[in-house]
Amino acid sequence: MSPVFDYLAANQERFVTDLCDYARFPSVSAQPKHAPDLRAAANWLANRARGLGLTTQIHETAGNPIITARTPHVAGAPTYLVYGHYDVQPPEPFELWTSPPFEPRIAGRNVFARGISDNKGQHLAHLNAVEAYLKTGTPLPCNLTFLIEGEEEVGSTQLYTFLTKHKKELACDAVVISDNGIPSLKHPALTYALRGIAALEVRIDGPSRDLHSGLFGGTVENPAMALCQLLGRLRDARGRITIPGFYDDVAKLSAYERKQLNALPFSPHQYRKLTGSPQLFGEHGFTPEEQRTCRPTLEINGLTSGYQGEGSKTIIPSWARAKITIRLVPNQKPKRVMAAVAKHLKAICPPTVKLTLTHGHGGEPYLVSPSGLLAQAALRALTAGFGHPARLMREGGSIPIVSAFKKDLGAETLLLGMALPDDNAHSPDEKFSLDAYAAGMRMAAHLWQELPRATT
Amino acid sequence: MSPVFDYLAANQERFVTDLCDYARFPSVSAQPKHAPDLRAAANWLANRARGLGLTTQIHETAGNPIITARTPHVAGAPTYLVYGHYDVQPPEPFELWTSPPFEPRIAGRNVFARGISDNKGQHLAHLNAVEAYLKTGTPLPCNLTFLIEGEEEVGSTQLYTFLTKHKKELACDAVVISDNGIPSLKHPALTYALRGIAALEVRIDGPSRDLHSGLFGGTVENPAMALCQLLGRLRDARGRITIPGFYDDVAKLSAYERKQLNALPFSPHQYRKLTGSPQLFGEHGFTPEEQRTCRPTLEINGLTSGYQGEGSKTIIPSWARAKITIRLVPNQKPKRVMAAVAKHLKAICPPTVKLTLTHGHGGEPYLVSPSGLLAQAALRALTAGFGHPARLMREGGSIPIVSAFKKDLGAETLLLGMALPDDNAHSPDEKFSLDAYAAGMRMAAHLWQELPRATT
Repeated sequence: MSPVFDYLAANQERFVTDLCDYARFPSVSAQPKHAPDLRAAANWLANRARGLGLTTQIHETAGNPIITARTPHVAGAPTYLVYGHYDVQPPEPFELWTSPPFEPRIAGRNVFARGISDNKGQHLAHLNAVEAYLKTGTPLPCNLTFLIEGEEEVGSTQLYTFLTKHKKELACDAVVISDNGIPSLKHPALTYALRGIAALEVRIDGPSRDLHSGLFGGTVENPAMALCQLLGRLRDARGRITIPGFYDDVAKLSAYERKQLNALPFSPHQYRKLTGSPQLFGEHGFTPEEQRTCRPTLEINGLTSGYQGEGSKTIIPSWARAKITIRLVPNQKPKRVMAAVAKHLKAICPPTVKLTLTHGHGGEPYLVSPSGLLAQAALRALTAGFGHPARLMREGGSIPIVSAFKKDLGAETLLLGMALPDDNAHSPDEKFSLDAYAAGMRMAAHLWQELPRATT
Repeated sequence: MSPVFDYLAANQERFVTDLCDYARFPSVSAQPKHAPDLRAAANWLANRARGLGLTTQIHETAGNPIITARTPHVAGAPTYLVYGHYDVQPPEPFELWTSPPFEPRIAGRNVFARGISDNKGQHLAHLNAVEAYLKTGTPLPCNLTFLIEGEEEVGSTQLYTFLTKHKKELACDAVVISDNGIPSLKHPALTYALRGIAALEVRIDGPSRDLHSGLFGGTVENPAMALCQLLGRLRDARGRITIPGFYDDVAKLSAYERKQLNALPFSPHQYRKLTGSPQLFGEHGFTPEEQRTCRPTLEINGLTSGYQGEGSKTIIPSWARAKITIRLVPNQKPKRVMAAVAKHLKAICPPTVKLTLTHGHGGEPYLVSPSGLLAQAALRALTAGFGHPARLMREGGSIPIVSAFKKDLGAETLLLGMALPDDNAHSPDEKFSLDAYAAGMRMAAHLWQELPRATT
């Protein structure tokens, strides 16, 4: 294996140059004007894969193209799918960037550009590791299929269709995604669980029109007040959701998991500063790391009612609305939780107003057994790649594609992030650590040795 | 006095024609493009007053002109000020009008046009009554000063300045305003009390920016939830405001007042239909009429937080805001009540968020002694004018100018409305009853006989 690592070490400078070239494409999927840039980015990546000897295809879709690239076939070996995306978040507001977002700038051990951490740098690291195998003639003990899409930042619509259409070609023993983060270079970690989501709109209708608050105030329910009282009752002073049945299906954390999660570096002071909150607040009885990854939450995402302009308008608003998302944890089911929420809201809504619930999208939570062979193999690759003992962690967000891989391909996903907490993904001055890039390549190279032992 | 009433009866048709002419001016004070129409309406009214022999002036202001018109001086007689406004509410949305808002349409005993009830028809009725006195040579036992402004619908800014500048010329023994309503033609009523108002903006700040609800949800307070819980606690299940001291200065209703108020025609079914509310709701222990006029309330006028567009956005919003107005009753003081509200909000706001209160405008509640000479004289004029026994009523709204008349001129105000509950003031298809118009003229003619007996 040493030729692979020697090759990676020897080619770092060029890998950085390549990454900068790739990051120069303003492949902003949210902005239609950038469609040609998305295609150019896809072509660049496809050419690179093809140049290494991968069987590469650019698949046309109703949106941006999807790339597949396969390593030379190894009969009888397992197959792994490496997922990534070449599209990036919009760079706006430009004025908050230190240097132009599509002119990569190296400063110290970081390179700044939109999309460089999310996700160009991370999947390019995987491709570089494959390059090291192929160029040094080191046999890959598995088959790899790269699946790189161009609409991750806008909902992956095309990818879902593509997955169901190409189940056979995409069949694999496991999926590897590097599109997430780790606590620090010294704390590599496998993300073994994600929260799910369920979205809901709550609308309260009162009078048939906005009423004069002087003429009518005191005789009819105020929908904004009714909404506040309804929502306010959903959480108690200890941060616990009061909806009957809400926690019914929450899997208990094992001692091993709690120990792992709470061994992750965490400074309440720095975390509070990061959020900009006056004070941290969460469900009593759990650490912040547990609160944000292992516990379900109910968040109001938006409130709308009545007059919102300058000054005041003396009305009883006709209606009030809240947008809500519920984060789910294993083994909660979006439908079951949503039914409990709806039942409770209907039960406590006063008869003085009309309640309308509109269910939005739902996504299941995800979990790879933390003590299973796959997870343990991934931990060994992370430890070897980063040179520090790898931990287990969970993430509080959702990655809907993970559920799709499970459903359509029947495959588990390993989330092996290379992003650091200060990478500013989705924010101005996004950057990627060159040390994480290098460690990510080594981790990937180790992974193709470790994983086959776990899945065969 | 019979020549006056004969004259009024004989000239009804022309008075209606005049009213239609006046209502044709689209004198919308909220819309700058209508400035010439406001001036034209002012000129029309001034010409009419001047034609009757009133000493009429059009006073230029920084906004729309203010008209004063005085009847020929009667030495030693008391002086009354008749207030009104020639500006009107915006007519939008046009599509909800049965006929164009500035093309008056007579249907049965109603005439439809924007501003015809609020307030052109009502102050024109007063001018018609004066015409009857002057044209029949009937001596007016008092001096009248008409004060007609053009910015009532946008806050009367110019009028307040005008009042303080012209205290002397506007000195009077009482003010008469017909810019309000009565329960029905068979239930004329004197509005002897108004609610005051205090406006407040409550802002809750949490994280320094919108946070990803997946990554951070569960560890920081959600400002929208904090706002809901804060506001939700301000009112109990019996409709009572829970703020300590909130009711401290509320004057107790006398048995006479309660009897009068509850003798007003009231159908809970029709009232509910009028509001379009699923069900009526108010402070327990009070009738709806008492709730909406004699009891203070706290209304949320608007809610703003986070994402309000289509679909959902998975954020913990950085802040949340509510606009609130409190309706005050005699003898509450805006400052004192607001201090109690602010104290309580600060006391119950959790330390996990930052609370900011911004005080808006305040207006004192108003009350004319219901058993005093002025009120009793007004009741007699109403009874005679409408041909039905007049009642005492209160109004739930505020008329800030009433407090200004008290403060600047030291004069009490009598509110002698001619509008009916279905006049659609501020709404599409505004109308004025021709029977109310005629009765209003007779009431005004009687008033100048009755009032001098009460004030001299």
